[in-house]
Amino acid sequence: QSTLNFGDSPHTRVNILTGEKVLVSPHRSKRPWQGQVEDLPGDDRPAYDPKCYLCPTNKRADGDINPDYKESFVFVNDFSALLKDTSQQEFNEDELFIAETEKGICKVIAFTPRHDLTLPEMEQSAIKAVVDLWQKEFEELSKVEWIRYIQIFENKGAIMGCSNPHPHGQIWSQNHLPVEIQKECVQQQKYFDKYQRTLLADYIKAELKKEERIIDENDSFVSLVPFWAAWPYETMIVSKRAVQNIAGFDEKEKEDLAAILKLLTTRYDNLFKTSFPYSAGMHQAPVNDGDHPEWHWHMHFYPPLLRSATVKKFMVGYEMLANPQRDITPEVAAEQLRNCATKHYKSK
Amino acid sequence: QSTLNFGDSPHTRVNILTGEKVLVSPHRSKRPWQGQVEDLPGDDRPAYDPKCYLCPTNKRADGDINPDYKESFVFVNDFSALLKDTSQQEFNEDELFIAETEKGICKVIAFTPRHDLTLPEMEQSAIKAVVDLWQKEFEELSKVEWIRYIQIFENKGAIMGCSNPHPHGQIWSQNHLPVEIQKECVQQQKYFDKYQRTLLADYIKAELKKEERIIDENDSFVSLVPFWAAWPYETMIVSKRAVQNIAGFDEKEKEDLAAILKLLTTRYDNLFKTSFPYSAGMHQAPVNDGDHPEWHWHMHFYPPLLRSATVKKFMVGYEMLANPQRDITPEVAAEQLRNCATKHYKSK
Ligand SMILES: O=P(O)(O)O[C@H]1O[C@H](CO)[C@@H](O)[C@H](O)[C@H]1O
Ligand SMILES: O=P(O)(O)O[C@H]1O[C@H](CO)[C@@H](O)[C@H](O)[C@H]1O
Repeated sequence: QSTLNFGDSPHTRVNILTGEKVLVSPHRSKRPWQGQVEDLPGDDRPAYDPKCYLCPTNKRADGDINPDYKESFVFVNDFSALLKDTSQQEFNEDELFIAETEKGICKVIAFTPRHDLTLPEMEQSAIKAVVDLWQKEFEELSKVEWIRYIQIFENKGAIMGCSNPHPHGQIWSQNHLPVEIQKECVQQQKYFDKYQRTLLADYIKAELKKEERIIDENDSFVSLVPFWAAWPYETMIVSKRAVQNIAGFDEKEKEDLAAILKLLTTRYDNLFKTSFPYSAGMHQAPVNDGDHPEWHWHMHFYPPLLRSATVKKFMVGYEMLANPQRDITPEVAAEQLRNCATKHYKSK
Repeated sequence: QSTLNFGDSPHTRVNILTGEKVLVSPHRSKRPWQGQVEDLPGDDRPAYDPKCYLCPTNKRADGDINPDYKESFVFVNDFSALLKDTSQQEFNEDELFIAETEKGICKVIAFTPRHDLTLPEMEQSAIKAVVDLWQKEFEELSKVEWIRYIQIFENKGAIMGCSNPHPHGQIWSQNHLPVEIQKECVQQQKYFDKYQRTLLADYIKAELKKEERIIDENDSFVSLVPFWAAWPYETMIVSKRAVQNIAGFDEKEKEDLAAILKLLTTRYDNLFKTSFPYSAGMHQAPVNDGDHPEWHWHMHFYPPLLRSATVKKFMVGYEMLANPQRDITPEVAAEQLRNCATKHYKSK
């Protein structure tokens, strides 16, 4: 059964993971666009680029030489935003100036030696190798006893601030919880205390019944446009089992994650026949911080494009000062993604 | 006296207006930029553009003809995100799907008939006329009894999603409080309950003593880079008097607001010798909602540029998923803005 019956009326929807709302203006999707149009990124990259600091055997900023890796490759970010030798200091002047040092480890992870690929263009087995590496890195970082949170993410596309088209992601880990995680902790805890089930377990159960926002489903995962999506084609991948973090996935689940990742990113590329830009990342339970039965692993995709490969949604003005806002509804976005082919437009 | 003594150490600072923190990585400002470079907007606009829907006497999307206005001009947005005839409906299914209709009025305000100007290039008396109009519009909208919040803002520059270079701003008003305002309500209320003074009154008093983040000051206002700024050159204008909203400003204060607006936006343009893009807007007390002695009028400026007219900060990846992050410190940004000339680089 379908969820809302507000017709074309402007309305707000609550993001149950953060407790914050988004403004939806369905009637506004007819608005013509006369503003900035993005450059289309060139799409003919070589398999190996001698000037790329992520390609095998090349030299990096700190002078290190990359190994001749065959699958994927991890190293500590040469320009880390967080450092592991930061000593703990706190500052609080009259509740007006409040600060605290933050300690962390930032890593870069090249998904493949091939400079010219992206996740959807990689073989599913190669994506599975990335999932394995994410899990291994997560497990190793959680052994560092002062680390409380591990953020695994990918910025894809120049429009998303990605400074190198070589397929890669990042892992930033740190000794306090970031703000977005704090919000999700509060919301998931509240729900779990009340129902002894995770918020996302109940949410995806309801979504699987309704079907209107589901994109793909396999034995272990579901991908969907969340009811409260803020970005036009924002999606989430959620595990069917209430697993607290990526360390909890077994072989079959890792296979299934690779499969649904390939499907979702392929649909994205097919939507506007372009290498679809996004920021994506997993949200998972804090580490070295006891058990978190309320936490349910999920992965967010925040893609900026709105109407075509070159017209994006600007989260500015009203959005920055007041409230995130969207035009096309999550239901329309889900339908469009569902209608996209699952074979990549560039593959023969 | 200077505030922090963390040296170059990565640290977090708390935004006392929202309760959320920002990650500061001072050591990282040396990072080279190899990513996307923005197009420089063309800068030779005519004083009148026959194709601009904001220029006097031109036709708009809905067929209306603009008057031959001489100062500024307001009209209801032809593509409003909020509509005034939306009927109240609520939806809550199992605390998982929560939505509510939202009613509002969205207006566009052309700052001047001159297509080729921007705020800093306008005479101070013309900026004063804009301030007068903001006040008048605010007063009129607060007479609509169902309106609870009025967001006055400006998106400047194509990079900020501004679809028309004709100098203009917007006013979105609505029947519930947007999320960012809810946060500032909570934080200001907490402080006021404890001290019977507004949070920002005490904050600017402390900043005026320290001087390290102040940019300009006149009898009625101060402009500064807040201690918790997230965008590289983020600033705030705060009234010295704890005024709840723009309706509370007298003639002298409106003159002083025009003066500090001209100064700040001129410094911005001079920083990278470019028409400096930003989203800016006032935060003020809810309306038709009783007295709000805890609320203190202020105006935020969120500019995206980082190192030059063409290299911006990307709030993506870690920032979207976890926590806002900045490289150069607020203190360095304030010093750079203070060192900018107060005469516009284009004026002779
Ligand atoms: O209304 P405009 O200027 O066409 O549109 C711009 O400002 C709006 C309000 O901040 C945003 O929702 C849009 O994404 C942006 O492009
Ligand atoms: O680390 P990169 O890819 O050079 O940089 C990119 O991702 C970072 C983490 O999301 C952001 O802080 C930067 O603004 C962005 O340009």
